[in-house]
Amino acid sequence: MARDERATPRTGPDDVVRAIGESARSALAIVKASVRELSGVGCSAPGPLDHLLGIVHEAPNMPGFVDFPLGPGLADALGLKAIYLDRDTVMAAVGEAVAGAARGARDFIYITISTGIGGAIVSGGRLLRGAANTAGEVGHFPVAFEGPRCGCGSYGCVESLAAGRFIAEAFGVDDAAVVFAAAEANDPRAQSIIARAEKALGNLAVGLANAISPALIVVGGSIAEHEPGHTLEPMRGAIAARAFKVAAAAVRIVPAALGRDVGMLGAVIYARERLAGRDEWFR
Amino acid sequence: MARDERATPRTGPDDVVRAIGESARSALAIVKASVRELSGVGCSAPGPLDHLLGIVHEAPNMPGFVDFPLGPGLADALGLKAIYLDRDTVMAAVGEAVAGAARGARDFIYITISTGIGGAIVSGGRLLRGAANTAGEVGHFPVAFEGPRCGCGSYGCVESLAAGRFIAEAFGVDDAAVVFAAAEANDPRAQSIIARAEKALGNLAVGLANAISPALIVVGGSIAEHEPGHTLEPMRGAIAARAFKVAAAAVRIVPAALGRDVGMLGAVIYARERLAGRDEWFR
Repeated sequence: MARDERATPRTGPDDVVRAIGESARSALAIVKASVRELSGVGCSAPGPLDHLLGIVHEAPNMPGFVDFPLGPGLADALGLKAIYLDRDTVMAAVGEAVAGAARGARDFIYITISTGIGGAIVSGGRLLRGAANTAGEVGHFPVAFEGPRCGCGSYGCVESLAAGRFIAEAFGVDDAAVVFAAAEANDPRAQSIIARAEKALGNLAVGLANAISPALIVVGGSIAEHEPGHTLEPMRGAIAARAFKVAAAAVRIVPAALGRDVGMLGAVIYARERLAGRDEWFR
Repeated sequence: MARDERATPRTGPDDVVRAIGESARSALAIVKASVRELSGVGCSAPGPLDHLLGIVHEAPNMPGFVDFPLGPGLADALGLKAIYLDRDTVMAAVGEAVAGAARGARDFIYITISTGIGGAIVSGGRLLRGAANTAGEVGHFPVAFEGPRCGCGSYGCVESLAAGRFIAEAFGVDDAAVVFAAAEANDPRAQSIIARAEKALGNLAVGLANAISPALIVVGGSIAEHEPGHTLEPMRGAIAARAFKVAAAAVRIVPAALGRDVGMLGAVIYARERLAGRDEWFR
């Protein structure tokens, strides 16, 4: 396995495609391989997208990604047809289902709590896509009547109240870790921001338990990984206190098993499953 | 077709079973038929339930309905085995799918806005059940940080902010119609209760559009029927203003086609589909 990480260019989607192409070639060089030896490429992308055409519709955190054909762009850049593009959270969910915490689960929700908040829903053994393929975007379920403007243009979204970027912004810093540390040190403003984030996650967890009724909620992402006491715990507490008894009894909340590499591992597993034709449940 | 309507006894579940049995026999008498001539019976029930065993787990608005075997009770009372019990909203969704506003839709959500708020979700052509069969209970998705205590024991639920019972209670009257009339007559307290209900419905609509992405949201129930301007309209407006563009473009919000009898017609259609073995998509 080889790894090459780069900052996302902020100068537009064409530069992003170029950077991914260069990054892929660098990673291949490490293991002395070339694109020609690849069977396929998995490409994790943010936001509403068309996974069959490889088009990213909206990516609020990436300038210029509006109905952008990222899949075809990468196919050109790499000279390889088999580019499997899908939402980062869908790939994480497929990865967790095949090789992680959701093995054998027919009803589970994957949630990532990181810079943003996203997810994917598997119900009755099938990944929900919905009419516009945004199914699973639980980070943009509004769970409050007020709050800062979200990257998506709305307000009240779980993401705008509990994602790392917004926790940091609310405190006026660049890194959510600063806010968690300040809250730990009894800074009342930090504590109220964290309390609000926990309330938002609690509302989301109760809503999903009642309205989707998963057997498992798998929670990944850097904030969840570093701060389980402020993410998984309040979600568990809210479900125990406020969800339907039968729904609460049926669900467990567990950390993602693929850890911080779930996005990358998910993409690899996703590409492998599609190449192998084992993709009917998530296509 | 014959109809017999009765108030639900408040004296416990056994009396409810007895009343349903008597009501069924009265309805049959009108068309000069007997139970022996029935192929099956559809029984619409509220709350979390087990549709295969016919057990109602919780029905907050009906005293004594805790893990109550309503299906088996009715089978005894009527001397008929083929009792098809399911959640009222599931039956309404099946009815709308087979003979109403959702014909041909593979991705739709049925929502009832009445005394309470409930629903059912069909995604990719399949009704979601979830691990505890509460999937679709969208009325108990919390969409606010505060609010009155809901019948389910939680708070912030759409139901506790926008259902008829709670709109009436917040104004201190018995009937939500009084509150809508007062708001129309510029009573500021009534207006703020209705505005809060509209906000709650707006949050729910945006969340469902983003996180489930239906092609259709079919809205039934007495409040929706009488007050589309305060229910369907604010839902449409919120989605247009605040949901992901692709999800908003993909969804339409329409009134239930089976009208005020959707619960009853849904149960009839549901029983017919189960008897005919056309129930794989909603079993």
